[in-house]
Amino acid sequence: MHDEFAKIEWLKNRFDFDGESRKPIVGIGDDAAVIELGAGPTIVTVDTQVEGVHFRHDLISCRDLGYRAMVAAASDVWAMAAMPSASVVALSLPADLLDEQFHELIEGLAEAARSTGARVAGGNLSGGESLTVTTTVLGSPVAEPVTRGGARPGDAIYVTGTLGSAALGLAILQNRAPTTGHAPNFIERWRRPPTHGPAAKALATIATAAVDVSDGCLQDLQHVCTASNVGATLRAHAIPNAPGYKTRCESLGLAPTALALTGGEDYELMFTALESPEAEALGTKIGRIVDGSGVRVVDEAGQAIELAATGFRHFS
Amino acid sequence: MHDEFAKIEWLKNRFDFDGESRKPIVGIGDDAAVIELGAGPTIVTVDTQVEGVHFRHDLISCRDLGYRAMVAAASDVWAMAAMPSASVVALSLPADLLDEQFHELIEGLAEAARSTGARVAGGNLSGGESLTVTTTVLGSPVAEPVTRGGARPGDAIYVTGTLGSAALGLAILQNRAPTTGHAPNFIERWRRPPTHGPAAKALATIATAAVDVSDGCLQDLQHVCTASNVGATLRAHAIPNAPGYKTRCESLGLAPTALALTGGEDYELMFTALESPEAEALGTKIGRIVDGSGVRVVDEAGQAIELAATGFRHFS
Repeated sequence: MHDEFAKIEWLKNRFDFDGESRKPIVGIGDDAAVIELGAGPTIVTVDTQVEGVHFRHDLISCRDLGYRAMVAAASDVWAMAAMPSASVVALSLPADLLDEQFHELIEGLAEAARSTGARVAGGNLSGGESLTVTTTVLGSPVAEPVTRGGARPGDAIYVTGTLGSAALGLAILQNRAPTTGHAPNFIERWRRPPTHGPAAKALATIATAAVDVSDGCLQDLQHVCTASNVGATLRAHAIPNAPGYKTRCESLGLAPTALALTGGEDYELMFTALESPEAEALGTKIGRIVDGSGVRVVDEAGQAIELAATGFRHFS
Repeated sequence: MHDEFAKIEWLKNRFDFDGESRKPIVGIGDDAAVIELGAGPTIVTVDTQVEGVHFRHDLISCRDLGYRAMVAAASDVWAMAAMPSASVVALSLPADLLDEQFHELIEGLAEAARSTGARVAGGNLSGGESLTVTTTVLGSPVAEPVTRGGARPGDAIYVTGTLGSAALGLAILQNRAPTTGHAPNFIERWRRPPTHGPAAKALATIATAAVDVSDGCLQDLQHVCTASNVGATLRAHAIPNAPGYKTRCESLGLAPTALALTGGEDYELMFTALESPEAEALGTKIGRIVDGSGVRVVDEAGQAIELAATGFRHFS
């Protein structure tokens, strides 16, 4: 990192994108940033993407990596029914990272800052053996923050979007499987997680609990159950999948249901709520909160299903 | 990181240290933390410590490493005349890190959270090749934040504490030099940077600009000059050193003045201010802001001195 100051000088203007009103009071280049977050409580979360653990250069471009790192962190803010408003980014850059790759990484982060609303207020550059992107996102709750701890027996469980696509996309890449048909959509889904600004706003009024689906729906629902001191019944056949998902899973020898329940990095929002048209409009109903503890997965007939794998596995 | 959840369960209580009033509204274990920062602007900064770049296990214990990582980040907040109030910590843990080392790291972070006031509200654990500690610290300005950009010609330049001790301590460790006499103080000074709560409060009323001395006094003063569009004269003989500093430098073949001006990681506060008893009480006067640009280092007779090295060098 002999050219740390040159890098900072270059990246400064990359994050200077949407006019005076969104600027930090003090931005990149001082000891710390000064930002205005709006009155009331502040949301803060941090996420790390490590080369060889969370990504490999042959599977994702530096631009998509930057985009993904920021959206993955913002996802935790949306899951609190809050809006991302600022971020700081710490990068550990290996000596052999090309300038062009560094530039792409910054462009991807800047793009995600625009998509999420988490303007980049500051950061840190250092050397390192592995490329590491650590993103801290700050935000403001829309109303009361929605935690994992508020689910009540009788609540329905909903999930936005579809599940399993990101894990399938990663599997296609790792298996160097043909990228015909819907494959590009699954790959894109892994490389570029969805944004959830409008959903986060809606959660504030309808959700009793919420979590982002990062470790796999089953494991993340288990976190909600533990925090809320309740149990859950998950209807496997109700899990929403993207077009072509099942066929492509089967062609790769993957069990579609297991992958949708345990594959990580979908970054959809799962929430519990009283059944209502508003909740139905926001997500697909996939189960119900019950008394007790633990998550029971059932088939269409209500019979318990056993799944082998649970949760996201890192590369290493 | 197969035991991520067990680790989080263990560390939760380590940061639960000083009663209800200081607790985050939502702390460790949800998607994000919710904290109350007080009304007005929020200060945010991030710092990373990477194994092999910023530290080596043979030179610092995991406990001191945790302490140091948090204080180094808090240092940027104090340098804005602000008080650290919360933090999030992202750890990349290599597979061969012992549980005992992990526990020490957390204890060191928790100790620094108490010393600095930056209570740990959340974080992230992941695997990684190199141990990496990324600390984001949030804070609230005492009054108006003090940036690097407010120095005016005629202002005096002050520094808290002493300079060069941390670099000397590191040199003693790297050279496996005898740890007799004052050596333990220098080593401790590198491993455990100072805290600056009261100084940060005082800066709010007296300082026109401030910076923390992390890259070496000369380079950090250059940052102030650039941001403020001014020049500076630094009086080398006025730089404050700790007892025994010069003798020990010379016994190691190090130039005491050059090391004090360019050695990194002192984490003292350097500030510019009108001369006053309050400023004198807070730091040692080491120079003056002038019209122009750049930093001119002079000897007792006012003659310019050339220094070979500038700024902190990473291990790699």
